[in-house]
Amino acid sequence: MTSDLERRARLLGPHMTTFYREPVHVVRGQGVWLWDKDGRQYLDCYNNVPHVGHCHPRVVEAICRQAGALNTHTRYVHDMILDYGEALTAKFGHDLDSLVMVCSGSEANDVALRMAQAMTGKTGVIGTDNTYHGNTAAVSQLNSSKVPVGGYQDHVRQVPAPDNMAPVGGSLEGQAEAFARGVEKAVAELDASGHGVSALIVCPYFANEGFPTLERGFLDRAIAAVRKAGGLIIADEVQPGFGRIGSHWWGHERLGFAPDIVTLGKPMGNGHPVAAVVTRPEILTCFQEAFRYFNTFGGNPVSAAAAMAVLQVIEDEALVENACDVGAYAVGLLQELQARHDVIADVRGAGLFFGAELWRDGTPATGLCAAMVDEMRDRGVLLHSVGRHSNTLKVRPPCVFSRENADQLVDVMDAALGAVT
Amino acid sequence: MTSDLERRARLLGPHMTTFYREPVHVVRGQGVWLWDKDGRQYLDCYNNVPHVGHCHPRVVEAICRQAGALNTHTRYVHDMILDYGEALTAKFGHDLDSLVMVCSGSEANDVALRMAQAMTGKTGVIGTDNTYHGNTAAVSQLNSSKVPVGGYQDHVRQVPAPDNMAPVGGSLEGQAEAFARGVEKAVAELDASGHGVSALIVCPYFANEGFPTLERGFLDRAIAAVRKAGGLIIADEVQPGFGRIGSHWWGHERLGFAPDIVTLGKPMGNGHPVAAVVTRPEILTCFQEAFRYFNTFGGNPVSAAAAMAVLQVIEDEALVENACDVGAYAVGLLQELQARHDVIADVRGAGLFFGAELWRDGTPATGLCAAMVDEMRDRGVLLHSVGRHSNTLKVRPPCVFSRENADQLVDVMDAALGAVT
Repeated sequence: MTSDLERRARLLGPHMTTFYREPVHVVRGQGVWLWDKDGRQYLDCYNNVPHVGHCHPRVVEAICRQAGALNTHTRYVHDMILDYGEALTAKFGHDLDSLVMVCSGSEANDVALRMAQAMTGKTGVIGTDNTYHGNTAAVSQLNSSKVPVGGYQDHVRQVPAPDNMAPVGGSLEGQAEAFARGVEKAVAELDASGHGVSALIVCPYFANEGFPTLERGFLDRAIAAVRKAGGLIIADEVQPGFGRIGSHWWGHERLGFAPDIVTLGKPMGNGHPVAAVVTRPEILTCFQEAFRYFNTFGGNPVSAAAAMAVLQVIEDEALVENACDVGAYAVGLLQELQARHDVIADVRGAGLFFGAELWRDGTPATGLCAAMVDEMRDRGVLLHSVGRHSNTLKVRPPCVFSRENADQLVDVMDAALGAVT
Repeated sequence: MTSDLERRARLLGPHMTTFYREPVHVVRGQGVWLWDKDGRQYLDCYNNVPHVGHCHPRVVEAICRQAGALNTHTRYVHDMILDYGEALTAKFGHDLDSLVMVCSGSEANDVALRMAQAMTGKTGVIGTDNTYHGNTAAVSQLNSSKVPVGGYQDHVRQVPAPDNMAPVGGSLEGQAEAFARGVEKAVAELDASGHGVSALIVCPYFANEGFPTLERGFLDRAIAAVRKAGGLIIADEVQPGFGRIGSHWWGHERLGFAPDIVTLGKPMGNGHPVAAVVTRPEILTCFQEAFRYFNTFGGNPVSAAAAMAVLQVIEDEALVENACDVGAYAVGLLQELQARHDVIADVRGAGLFFGAELWRDGTPATGLCAAMVDEMRDRGVLLHSVGRHSNTLKVRPPCVFSRENADQLVDVMDAALGAVT
């Protein structure tokens, strides 16, 4: 292993991190399972990219078939992107009928920010203060994990993100209103500075923020403030989208709002690099008039075929329903676990995106959570941590995760908690 | 066809352009050939993305095999990205031993600009005034086709690009020196403005600028001025790279300079969305310390497998040598054509990237060139135009293009010139 890690550090840089104290050298995947080079099997409770399961045969077959027939850019006419575009936009409950296909969620958010600028004629952007929306120079201005070189640009405002254990404004009851006051303050600042508000961008599941439990309508007052100031709402559905949250296809439906622009990424092609921005036709037109934009790989026939296969598998295997059922079952198991382990301060989630927040002695148990992540890995279960203090065990498996898989996860978690506490 | 174009305009926006007066509705590709939905066959003289030929069986097989075994991100350890990284960096003649794998040339240039910022502590960027380096918000600041909303940012300077028919400074002999003076002026402005110079970014083939004929050493004085001011040199090898120019693997080798950062894109995976930034280890380290960067899809096992297959096919089928031989042969044929057609003012190129510049009555024949592009398409040969006045027929086919294909291209061009002039 050392030799591989040395090669890796030399080629990919000394700061290209791996997961886990002892990295996993993977060689094969199938469904919810991964195997390492020594033949050891792991239950994958973390990877959302293989949304319909690692190496799903229908997705692999779609990629192979199309890669063998034609792969080219969209300055020619090809049916696949049109068929997919119609199938995808049909999944939205309101007037999001147009799309731009790109290669990554980062490219999608980079485009979304410019769409909002083009449509509103303003430049200010409001995001939350503990988030991640992607890795381009423009989008990384919104990230909280590392202050950009030269600091944040003046048109970016970060507002306090909602939280279960340390709610904005001090109470869970008043959190929606306190969150909205943060947005209203940012709106006022951006208006005063001359930037104006082009958009509020949020993950409607606040996934990186630690997926706090939010009631339907949580964002209504904040959204009203942005709209009143002439801004648009961008929903980054890279993590909650495609039915992962079980109750709905999209995170914004669960919270009960209608975004102007939706961005999609990781799970869209089950690992194939494909992503998209979905919006109203007039916003797309306005963007195309303001910016010349063409994406060579975006929406090529192979990418569109991979994405189409993913949509079809979600339908045919009833994976949204599975996420709903297994997620609720697993949260129930975690609540039982909570009754036996004091360090579990909170259990929460929706569908196949759930977890347990760890506290000890009245403070976030960051170190314990890191130890749990490694202990679980050593016991054959892959998950990770999330949240402002990295003290929440994050479970976000392929959506073919079963009740039996949930049993195994929670059994191992029970034993691991016993070992590390 | 109308129905497809209507669906396309509705889904992808009214300004999502197609090539050709009558768009080509493609369904299949193989080698240098494309077929439309009516079964009509076209000689593809334009697409550089399918570098080793449309649907090359070895690339398709590599994608299928790896997609069926494992596709995941690089926070696990996997051999494929390491094997590929070593094979790729071995293709560079100097100390470019590290890489970041991404999904598109746009992402690659977006990273490259930040690498230069991190390494130099400066922010100014110099590019040429008739170019394209990609579509992210940051990179599109360098593009000349459309002024960005809000104008160019103050840290960007565009210098006059070299040209065969209208050389910078007025003469071909003095062009290198005049180009360097443009760069020196930009350096002085950026230093005076406080931005300083982080990088000069150029395509070393000046592909979008119209691929002017440049002697070895053309950039030396300009590069010296940038280096003296503390800036780095970024070579955007998206178009000339991977042996297309025949005499060398990379455009910068042909011009005889050693860039600090090289970006790669389109042809790298023969259509699979994969791209890379190759640089010196200390620059990568500096970038990783200044910016948190992780690319979920970048360098995944399938992308790396596709890219590895492309490298192997280039070697095994001797495609660099083929580009050299067929390119020289085709340029010779075009020179014969020039003797019979007054509108051909210049014939130039290197390897399988060549063309003919059209002038009439002492002015660039932009309209005639557009008519030629459509006429060629109607006669079953796909190419396009390029250059400041879009008056150069651009030929940049898959690198399996043969002498027989060149004969067909030039025969059809001969007849088409007769028809449109």
